[in-house]
Amino acid sequence: MKIIADNLRITQKSIAEAVVQRNPAPLQEMAIRCENAGADGIDINSGPLYRDPESHMTFMVEAVQDVTRLPLVMDTSNPKALKTGLQVCKNPVTLNGVSLEPSKLEHILPLASMYPCDLICYLLHPDGHVPPDSAGRLEVAVSLYQKCLEAGIAAERIVMDPVVAPLSWPDGLFQAREILTVIRTLPDLLGFPVRTIAGLSNLAAGAQETARKHQVEQVYLPMLAASGLSMVLMNVLHAGPVRVARTCRLFSHENIFTWEMVG
Amino acid sequence: MKIIADNLRITQKSIAEAVVQRNPAPLQEMAIRCENAGADGIDINSGPLYRDPESHMTFMVEAVQDVTRLPLVMDTSNPKALKTGLQVCKNPVTLNGVSLEPSKLEHILPLASMYPCDLICYLLHPDGHVPPDSAGRLEVAVSLYQKCLEAGIAAERIVMDPVVAPLSWPDGLFQAREILTVIRTLPDLLGFPVRTIAGLSNLAAGAQETARKHQVEQVYLPMLAASGLSMVLMNVLHAGPVRVARTCRLFSHENIFTWEMVG
Repeated sequence: MKIIADNLRITQKSIAEAVVQRNPAPLQEMAIRCENAGADGIDINSGPLYRDPESHMTFMVEAVQDVTRLPLVMDTSNPKALKTGLQVCKNPVTLNGVSLEPSKLEHILPLASMYPCDLICYLLHPDGHVPPDSAGRLEVAVSLYQKCLEAGIAAERIVMDPVVAPLSWPDGLFQAREILTVIRTLPDLLGFPVRTIAGLSNLAAGAQETARKHQVEQVYLPMLAASGLSMVLMNVLHAGPVRVARTCRLFSHENIFTWEMVG
Repeated sequence: MKIIADNLRITQKSIAEAVVQRNPAPLQEMAIRCENAGADGIDINSGPLYRDPESHMTFMVEAVQDVTRLPLVMDTSNPKALKTGLQVCKNPVTLNGVSLEPSKLEHILPLASMYPCDLICYLLHPDGHVPPDSAGRLEVAVSLYQKCLEAGIAAERIVMDPVVAPLSWPDGLFQAREILTVIRTLPDLLGFPVRTIAGLSNLAAGAQETARKHQVEQVYLPMLAASGLSMVLMNVLHAGPVRVARTCRLFSHENIFTWEMVG
């Protein structure tokens, strides 16, 4: 299970200001901190970038790739920003992402056909809603997979995101269990070892108490890993959850000789 | 997922001395501590009790059931001690346990036919060895299930123990993953929701560093839970792993309204 840092996001004031001022230092510091904390990739969450998406995204990607060779995830719903990201990024890149929403199929899916990148597919209904259960998500997965193949995107470039729902939803616990079923079922359903990603921070979104948030994250993370999750998108600057993610990895690797390696 | 305390064991000096001296206080203090720590059941590990098994087991069971109404697990390979335990125990009782070893089939399986109890079935080869993989364990499970049915033991009284191997074994990590497969597969294989139990302490057996032991236990426990484990046998006096076990339970229950209940 790879660890993707979700720490570099424009909703953070210091990052937002740095982008406006074209000051690369705060982005670079964050990228270096993420890499040092054990991230295998960094999500660049630029927000929608309504104004001047091309030059904003160019600035963000160039700032980050000047200090790290980690794979980068371009995380925005803005197709212009995504296209620019694909053009300027020298590191391995993942588009985040498409869904069955018509605007995404029309404007984002073609980008993944044109550029060599991985593609995150959100298991959402065409209206952007979260399906009510695992069956709903799996149905969406089959449709999205077909759309990808029709667009000439090879199966191994696809990363399915079953969309972790907040536990604070009335059916949050049910959703959490359904997500595990989806992750476990997808490879059999699609007939190949399709990769999956989950956003861990969504689980306790809206909760106040940090200790309790970490407690549920640290329990759900091994459940995701045991279900076969390929990548987790998470805050890598929380030592506890990262230690858990690394220990999960131990259990999912054949080639580690001894459990004494758990750090 | 139920939590069964493995703390009451004759290998603890204070418990061994109390049994010899017929002093119930240390056993009762331990039983109360386990119950207060959140145990749903208590394993009474009496050891083989070569001498005077009947009176030793009577003392242990009576001492414990005088202070708790929790289900008790009679944990010994001595059939005489098990029989006595079944006769004197007023709490719900589980026999721990049988396997395909000829002596167990001959002397312990019949006890489970004669007394109303649950029965733990170890997925071991007839020679007492741990099968090399999940397929081996599942094969044993089918044989043991047949033996139970032939002995008149109802399916719902059976609890399968896939036998957690120490991570320090050369193939320990592989075994740990195979255990998860076994737990997930058994209900489909046997065609009913067969219960399962796993001894968490086995995982890090032999390891020295407590923090590291707890780290792997706290990661493996949610993996077991996500695979559908019914009961975990564990040290309930370690706060961290118990908190994790309770949080696991949250994810496996339909009827809990809100994740705010995580303690």
